[in-house]
Amino acid sequence: MRILFSGRSMDSEPWVAALREALPDASVEAWSPGAAPADYAVVWMPPQQLFDEQRGLRAIFNAGAGVDALLSLALPEGVPIVRITDAGMAVQMAEFVAQAVIRHYRELDEYGRGISSGAWRTRPPRPRASFPVGIMGLGVLGARVAQTIGGFDFPVLGWSRTPRTVAGVACFSGPDGFHAFLARTRVVVCLLPLTPDTENILNRDTLSRLMPGGYVINVARGAHLVDEDLVALIDNGHLSGATLDVFRTEPLPADHPFWRCPAITITPHVSARTLHAESVAQIAGRILAFHRREPVGGVVDRARRY
Amino acid sequence: MRILFSGRSMDSEPWVAALREALPDASVEAWSPGAAPADYAVVWMPPQQLFDEQRGLRAIFNAGAGVDALLSLALPEGVPIVRITDAGMAVQMAEFVAQAVIRHYRELDEYGRGISSGAWRTRPPRPRASFPVGIMGLGVLGARVAQTIGGFDFPVLGWSRTPRTVAGVACFSGPDGFHAFLARTRVVVCLLPLTPDTENILNRDTLSRLMPGGYVINVARGAHLVDEDLVALIDNGHLSGATLDVFRTEPLPADHPFWRCPAITITPHVSARTLHAESVAQIAGRILAFHRREPVGGVVDRARRY
Repeated sequence: MRILFSGRSMDSEPWVAALREALPDASVEAWSPGAAPADYAVVWMPPQQLFDEQRGLRAIFNAGAGVDALLSLALPEGVPIVRITDAGMAVQMAEFVAQAVIRHYRELDEYGRGISSGAWRTRPPRPRASFPVGIMGLGVLGARVAQTIGGFDFPVLGWSRTPRTVAGVACFSGPDGFHAFLARTRVVVCLLPLTPDTENILNRDTLSRLMPGGYVINVARGAHLVDEDLVALIDNGHLSGATLDVFRTEPLPADHPFWRCPAITITPHVSARTLHAESVAQIAGRILAFHRREPVGGVVDRARRY
Repeated sequence: MRILFSGRSMDSEPWVAALREALPDASVEAWSPGAAPADYAVVWMPPQQLFDEQRGLRAIFNAGAGVDALLSLALPEGVPIVRITDAGMAVQMAEFVAQAVIRHYRELDEYGRGISSGAWRTRPPRPRASFPVGIMGLGVLGARVAQTIGGFDFPVLGWSRTPRTVAGVACFSGPDGFHAFLARTRVVVCLLPLTPDTENILNRDTLSRLMPGGYVINVARGAHLVDEDLVALIDNGHLSGATLDVFRTEPLPADHPFWRCPAITITPHVSARTLHAESVAQIAGRILAFHRREPVGGVVDRARRY
């Protein structure tokens, strides 16, 4: 079998080398225009030209969990798209969200600022029951995050497109359950896939429905959040702040209002990194399974777009 | 029964009121010199005079987990001392330590500094297996911390005076196991009681035995750590930094070298706060149980000093 790799911001060499090692019977090459026809493509934000040329692909493997960028291209119809599921990302997401929740709840930034100005003052402990954490998206990542946050005894809620059951999590679903979920949530964590249904889902209307003092953690995609609505609701005091790891434009432009808002903690899209070894192992295993016509995890439903 | 309360840095009024409410058949008062004889004392860092005067105490209840300050006084012999166990402290300790471990492992302070200077640079993910976390002290708090850290897939080790078994934790014990524990630990978390055996236990010799790049999290007592040895090992590069919540003198004096070390994160003794409602409920329940001659948890072994 013949495999092509194309990874926009990723260094091709180690990916190609690792795929060759994992699939010694396959021919693996970095894609370039005019490449010979291949059976499989392993891609991250590939150029449209790859799909215009490669008309014989049997499956497309996305080297990441989110397929929003890939699905924005014109892809060959009927060809399965397989995305990364977990491969070391769930634990990273759990730890990133946990530290963001703890940092906010325990007022650690306030302590840090106080300490650096010489103040040695303790603040009264805040009741944990007043900080329900609501997770939007209950896939592999969302379920792990929900479980982790529950381990710290916070009330945990979850919201998903279709009904889900996660132990210890008050689950809501669909448009009908969304307002009830928001009204009971103080710290909202966005882990949704980006689809036409979820774009701009965190906006003035929905963020206003969070409990007073609400806090936003976005680790999904920048386009889930209406930037100016977040800033307005922090400015008017309804929201207390946000931890944002993803943005509509990355790097975040120097003149973006987020930079001037001290209640917003910014990280450069690092909440869950694609881990090379784990991802290659998962993709190689799935290519082999697919080739043997065995069932494969992570197949994208093109209609729901994740 | 008659109960006296004395809490140095604590506001007496809410404690007395809450104890009265929880024990309606008891007489509860804030201690003052010359107070009438009482059956029980509920104390936090009380004055020696209380014990010099109150010769008829049947038990002493410490309104905190650590009894090092209480045991430094001349206490009536044979009178049981009961300390707080958990009462909402274990989860706080777990979240404080978790965020300190994550913040260090995920280089979040470095990201924060980079972001604030306009850099949008990602760092290569670091292998989790290279960050074994070693917990010193496997009591109620230590066991919960170990479990929490294990939930983030770090290798977890534990060390305690006497042998312990904690699921998923590589347990070491006693002086014989200490060097082996240190040699396999990169992030060390001190949760020991302060006793003559554990004073200065984190010193140049023991800290040098940690894996290169070692990191110190002290949430127990300042006197566990030899301050100048920590600074020297950070300066010579063997250790990468520390998160310190407790100090030999609190507030930390303005001229202390810790202030000039950017690799040390300082918090003002807030890792696990005594929670008023939970602590009163636990102490009141134990006073009643003790009064009925039922077994009571949290009784201090004066010989081992915790």
